[in-house]
Amino acid sequence: MPASDRVKRGMTESSWIRRMFEEGITLKQKFGADKVFDLSLGNPIVEPPAEFTSEIRRLAENPIPGMHRYMENAGYPETRAAVASQLAGETGIKYTGSDIIMTCGAAAALNVTLKTLVNHGDEIIIFSPYFAEYFHYISNHYGIPRVLPTDDRFLPRLDALGEAIGPKTRALLINSPNNPSGVVYQDEFLDQLGTLLHEKSARLGHPIYLLSDEPYKRLIYDGVKFAYPSRHYVNTIIVNSHSKDLALPGERIGYIAIHPDCSDRAELLDGFVYCNRTLGFVNAPAIMQHAIRRLQAITVSIADYQRKRDFLYENLTNMGYSMLKPQGAFYMFPKTPIPDDVAFIRELQQELVLTVPGQGFGTPGYFRISYCTDDHVIEGSLSGFRKVARKYGLC
Amino acid sequence: MPASDRVKRGMTESSWIRRMFEEGITLKQKFGADKVFDLSLGNPIVEPPAEFTSEIRRLAENPIPGMHRYMENAGYPETRAAVASQLAGETGIKYTGSDIIMTCGAAAALNVTLKTLVNHGDEIIIFSPYFAEYFHYISNHYGIPRVLPTDDRFLPRLDALGEAIGPKTRALLINSPNNPSGVVYQDEFLDQLGTLLHEKSARLGHPIYLLSDEPYKRLIYDGVKFAYPSRHYVNTIIVNSHSKDLALPGERIGYIAIHPDCSDRAELLDGFVYCNRTLGFVNAPAIMQHAIRRLQAITVSIADYQRKRDFLYENLTNMGYSMLKPQGAFYMFPKTPIPDDVAFIRELQQELVLTVPGQGFGTPGYFRISYCTDDHVIEGSLSGFRKVARKYGLC
Repeated sequence: MPASDRVKRGMTESSWIRRMFEEGITLKQKFGADKVFDLSLGNPIVEPPAEFTSEIRRLAENPIPGMHRYMENAGYPETRAAVASQLAGETGIKYTGSDIIMTCGAAAALNVTLKTLVNHGDEIIIFSPYFAEYFHYISNHYGIPRVLPTDDRFLPRLDALGEAIGPKTRALLINSPNNPSGVVYQDEFLDQLGTLLHEKSARLGHPIYLLSDEPYKRLIYDGVKFAYPSRHYVNTIIVNSHSKDLALPGERIGYIAIHPDCSDRAELLDGFVYCNRTLGFVNAPAIMQHAIRRLQAITVSIADYQRKRDFLYENLTNMGYSMLKPQGAFYMFPKTPIPDDVAFIRELQQELVLTVPGQGFGTPGYFRISYCTDDHVIEGSLSGFRKVARKYGLC
Repeated sequence: MPASDRVKRGMTESSWIRRMFEEGITLKQKFGADKVFDLSLGNPIVEPPAEFTSEIRRLAENPIPGMHRYMENAGYPETRAAVASQLAGETGIKYTGSDIIMTCGAAAALNVTLKTLVNHGDEIIIFSPYFAEYFHYISNHYGIPRVLPTDDRFLPRLDALGEAIGPKTRALLINSPNNPSGVVYQDEFLDQLGTLLHEKSARLGHPIYLLSDEPYKRLIYDGVKFAYPSRHYVNTIIVNSHSKDLALPGERIGYIAIHPDCSDRAELLDGFVYCNRTLGFVNAPAIMQHAIRRLQAITVSIADYQRKRDFLYENLTNMGYSMLKPQGAFYMFPKTPIPDDVAFIRELQQELVLTVPGQGFGTPGYFRISYCTDDHVIEGSLSGFRKVARKYGLC
């Protein structure tokens, strides 16, 4: 009995994304890195913006005394204020520093939030296709992931949601721009969602919290605007990271932002601080809290991502692949030409093209492509995509 | 029902250390920072060694392409190899990079290890006085903290341990040099402990793991040597951080090191990687993994700590306070002159001297002093200590 039953179960069901990433490493060793076209992991190849590099240089050359010590578990007041000020400007909601908890990325923010909210057996609603890690995060704290469907535009089905919400429901977890579908929720949808949650909360006599996972909110194309869930529902808790907008996934820096008018705000904030501390995060890395303070308005270039998306979308649809054109993030989620998505991605893998089967996101019959990679990888993948498309009579 | 029952319970029982730290902030605002003598928190005021500062400068001036991206969840192979090489040199045990998982500090390392090991209701044995956070870490994963006593030298009582180990026991968690007592376990004791655990594991038919929390192992005085638990028991899992030896507590960098001959090593390592990922740590901060790679043999100056300890020990014992002379870490754990340790530290607080009551460490009748602070704070605290000592007839 070395590892616990829950961990063993978690490992067997573990991430298809990481599995493909690791199989990719093996394939690269065997065939050479330039022969393998890895579209499996959302690990941006762009470097952080120049403004980040100069902030780090400034800190390295002029260290602030005490800058590597413990601070309050919630983070530096100046960093929290900077995050709040940017959010307030974007949303028109009066966020202040006291609404912000700095965290070791969005994965930490979600674990902290879920641990704070969940009693053993409480339900957290997610929508398929979902980011597979959500399942593990919810289970960590003995919550039950309740998976609901989306419609043919990958929008959560509100009729199913209305039926599913019950006394055990503690929260919904949404993600727009969405990983893996690339869909961006619009104000009209969020307004309907907010109204439904408001009614259901009133009927149940306790708030249903809306957890909004927003790491891709700056990566949106074609002039589409990000619509803020917090503007449509007061009991919204934002979790975010700078992994994508500042290209810092390895540094683990992000935050929780609670709506200033959220129900039981003070107790939740105390809970977040307690869980940030006791889950072992303690605080978000000090140097990153110093570095990102002045970078709240900065984003990596999205023109490059849009160009990659356009190139790949055009080529794949010309080959006969069927998909919604993604509006944000850096993923595509086409249908597989055969029902068995694992068999399909294994075919692609034979051609040394690495993708992730839809069942890794709770949605068999699709596959995910991550295009936050070098152009030569994207270009090199086309011949494999074409060969498999031909095999299944798409073109 | 905003925060979950477990979190609410955790918060009420929450850390005396953090409570005193926070009350200290209020007192400083009221009376002025220079009038309050805060000996409550183990937040070292020393700056990181010059070698660290120049590593950060080197990285800032010559960024490595991709240095802020995701890496394998276990950490950079080069960093893991550097940690292993240092450990192998110190212990004579053949640690290699594959035995090391880089973590966001020791608090993360403990949560990852405990989540990996603990089934709902499994027992983890700790010894009073213990670092209070252990309680929360164990409870996070639905484990049961089983508290056992130490003897009059603050060494775990092996007779009590022998009786307490049963089918539900998964692991023991020890901490030498000890927070709060300052005791350093010696080889003779560890040998007896190892023998007992070996016998008990054989009788139960499953290994009892020894979790060794070693953040203070470089902070030892009077020429006393650190004795490695892993040399006395093969099923030892080290958790460590660079918060104290490199004075980087705000940066959250540490590691897990599993004994290369540990039972079920491969499954445990898989579990650690899985839990590091899904608890939301994902990986230890990338820049710190780059920075500490070449600093494995570096430690802050301990002469300063020893001087502070000697000064405070001599003064307090002269006033009549009774304590074991601490051999390591930067804490003292004297007896309170009255049985009610909370009443006693409140008396000190009236004199604007901040310490932590022993019951915060599961050991009423004592109090903890943290002396990793400025000399003027230590010197300034003496008059308050003297006044309260007189009140209780110590001198």
